[in-house]
Amino acid sequence: MQTTAAFRGLSCTACGASADPDEERCPDCGGVLAPEYDADEVASADDARPFPTDAAVSIDEGATPLVAVPTLADELGVASAAVKDEGRNPTGSLADRKLALAVSAAVQQGADRVATPSPGNGAQAAAAYAARADVDSKGFVPSRCPFLNKAMVNVHGGDMYVVEGRYPDAVAAFEGSDEAFTSVAPGHPFRVAGGVALALELLDDRAWTAPDAVVHPTGHGETVVGLERGFALAAATGLVESVPRLYAAQPDASAPIADAVRDGVADPTPVDHPDTIVGPLEIPDPAAGAAAVDALHATDGGAVAVPDEDVLQGAVDGCEMGPEVGATGGTAVAGVRALANRDAFAPDEDVVLVNPVAGSKEADLLRSHLMSQGL
Amino acid sequence: MQTTAAFRGLSCTACGASADPDEERCPDCGGVLAPEYDADEVASADDARPFPTDAAVSIDEGATPLVAVPTLADELGVASAAVKDEGRNPTGSLADRKLALAVSAAVQQGADRVATPSPGNGAQAAAAYAARADVDSKGFVPSRCPFLNKAMVNVHGGDMYVVEGRYPDAVAAFEGSDEAFTSVAPGHPFRVAGGVALALELLDDRAWTAPDAVVHPTGHGETVVGLERGFALAAATGLVESVPRLYAAQPDASAPIADAVRDGVADPTPVDHPDTIVGPLEIPDPAAGAAAVDALHATDGGAVAVPDEDVLQGAVDGCEMGPEVGATGGTAVAGVRALANRDAFAPDEDVVLVNPVAGSKEADLLRSHLMSQGL
Ligand SMILES: [Zn+2]
Ligand SMILES: [Zn+2]
Repeated sequence: MQTTAAFRGLSCTACGASADPDEERCPDCGGVLAPEYDADEVASADDARPFPTDAAVSIDEGATPLVAVPTLADELGVASAAVKDEGRNPTGSLADRKLALAVSAAVQQGADRVATPSPGNGAQAAAAYAARADVDSKGFVPSRCPFLNKAMVNVHGGDMYVVEGRYPDAVAAFEGSDEAFTSVAPGHPFRVAGGVALALELLDDRAWTAPDAVVHPTGHGETVVGLERGFALAAATGLVESVPRLYAAQPDASAPIADAVRDGVADPTPVDHPDTIVGPLEIPDPAAGAAAVDALHATDGGAVAVPDEDVLQGAVDGCEMGPEVGATGGTAVAGVRALANRDAFAPDEDVVLVNPVAGSKEADLLRSHLMSQGL
Repeated sequence: MQTTAAFRGLSCTACGASADPDEERCPDCGGVLAPEYDADEVASADDARPFPTDAAVSIDEGATPLVAVPTLADELGVASAAVKDEGRNPTGSLADRKLALAVSAAVQQGADRVATPSPGNGAQAAAAYAARADVDSKGFVPSRCPFLNKAMVNVHGGDMYVVEGRYPDAVAAFEGSDEAFTSVAPGHPFRVAGGVALALELLDDRAWTAPDAVVHPTGHGETVVGLERGFALAAATGLVESVPRLYAAQPDASAPIADAVRDGVADPTPVDHPDTIVGPLEIPDPAAGAAAVDALHATDGGAVAVPDEDVLQGAVDGCEMGPEVGATGGTAVAGVRALANRDAFAPDEDVVLVNPVAGSKEADLLRSHLMSQGL
């Protein structure tokens, strides 16, 4: 593969073994692989990427704004609050950063067809980047996948298998498929690399002064792993003097990572009957669960589980205070409120929330919530 | 009003008279007002704005990417093609740039309630910026306004009147309303200012080398007016040496501006029975029609009307080639193709298309088009 000067290869988040960039999981232990960068070669956010421009599939993802939300800061009793609005990516979600890199890696490996299971946004992003790279794609999505995602997969010319049931059924169909494709599935090391890039960009947005805490709506945990790696890398380069505490926020009906943190368990237990309105976060058996728990502890952060009702109210309130957030982003609003209630933040702290999905993409969920309130 | 050093006030696009920044239309002739800037005070794209940061309502709109689309350039037989992706704004449309400024002006005038008629995206943006500024808002939308826009107006806490019928019925209800509000309606001078800012940013994206042509999907024409003013301003500052030809693209069933250009008429004739699938562009009687025709001529550009079928195919093809575009952006793809067919571009030219609305916001239209093709 053609890689940047800064990219040093992959390493296992579980056993520490080095791995070839072609690997999807650690050949030794099956652990999640994460990218390694040479801190001496990273002098800017742009340096923390694996592939040079001419070897990367891109639709100009990233460069999203960090939007100050003073009303929320006042409510939480902190010095500042801001939303990193990842809804402002090419297909309207953070999945774009991840699939851009995973599809780039696949294309460099000679793939002519990529595939992933997905609750929806990942399949849309995979189809978009595959089309841009002129390779085929297939998304394995559950029947509850939103119409919008299914429609846009088709519009990008992507193939799609709508699996009756929920997300784990889509994973089973993906894993049991005998079709030929290169996986760009959750837990992929270059998806994790997308989280690393997000971390560096977020610090750059703040002129290399780290916030005190970052709250991230979490499904598979791969972005949490990437964020922790990215913050650690920035500290190693000397670009920042400190790193933020990282908090995962999950809907309480599907909160394997938050449950593991609460119970002091290293490897999250799959949730038997996940049932949350937040489709993108209905991930009962996360692909990077243990690595995410590890990452949260490494930053002295933690996790929080919040009820759907609070998530939806958080989304609606978030839309009134700042950039549009949907149910996925509302999980961060509800999460940061719950964390403030347990005194997780000091009054002089700066808090950042990640909004992973454009509010418009989840308009139907928010409208239903208003209806349920008689509005 | 608190304005920037560069902002010099408003002038009438029809009679040239100067006007107070509080005016919505020319007091002398009713013409569209546009912002005037002092070229000596404009040394960067950021200078071409009317209000200083602390007097502006903002959700960090703008700073959208200019995405190269080499596949389209090859097809058109031009040196380069790129999409200025305005779908990557806070509520997913170019309306954000315009309503940010119009709402800022209204708030500075002491408004506690703003209102606009809108096919949809303008009402969503108005509600978002009003909520951010903590003032009330009301959108007058036709019954065909997409569910997504209506839902998000509600989510932002905006008031809404869904008028039975089409866009002109919403305008009639707005104009006939006896409620108290400050207008931020199409044709507003600070909406035009949003187009000026877009022009400067687009030139900045290209390191102050002007493209040869810009194709813009056009409804009211206010952005076309702003773009022409912005390009002329950039030339006056010396930041660029030339200005692009500006082309308006409209669906042929609702193409009053393109019809006027074709027929050599200065003031567009309202369309009697507009009926296009492109809701945001179903504007039979544009608020800035004459000013837009004037602006197109001033750049040596023109206009093009394209059938809905080509618009939808342009949208689907656009999604496969580059950033997601919906039916609105597909009008630019269809338009640039039609222009290339009539040899509007030389082989060494750089062409820019504006995508005004995120593709995801119009997923249903694109999916229906695939269905109609049996896909
Ligand atoms: Zn291992
Ligand atoms: Zn006048």
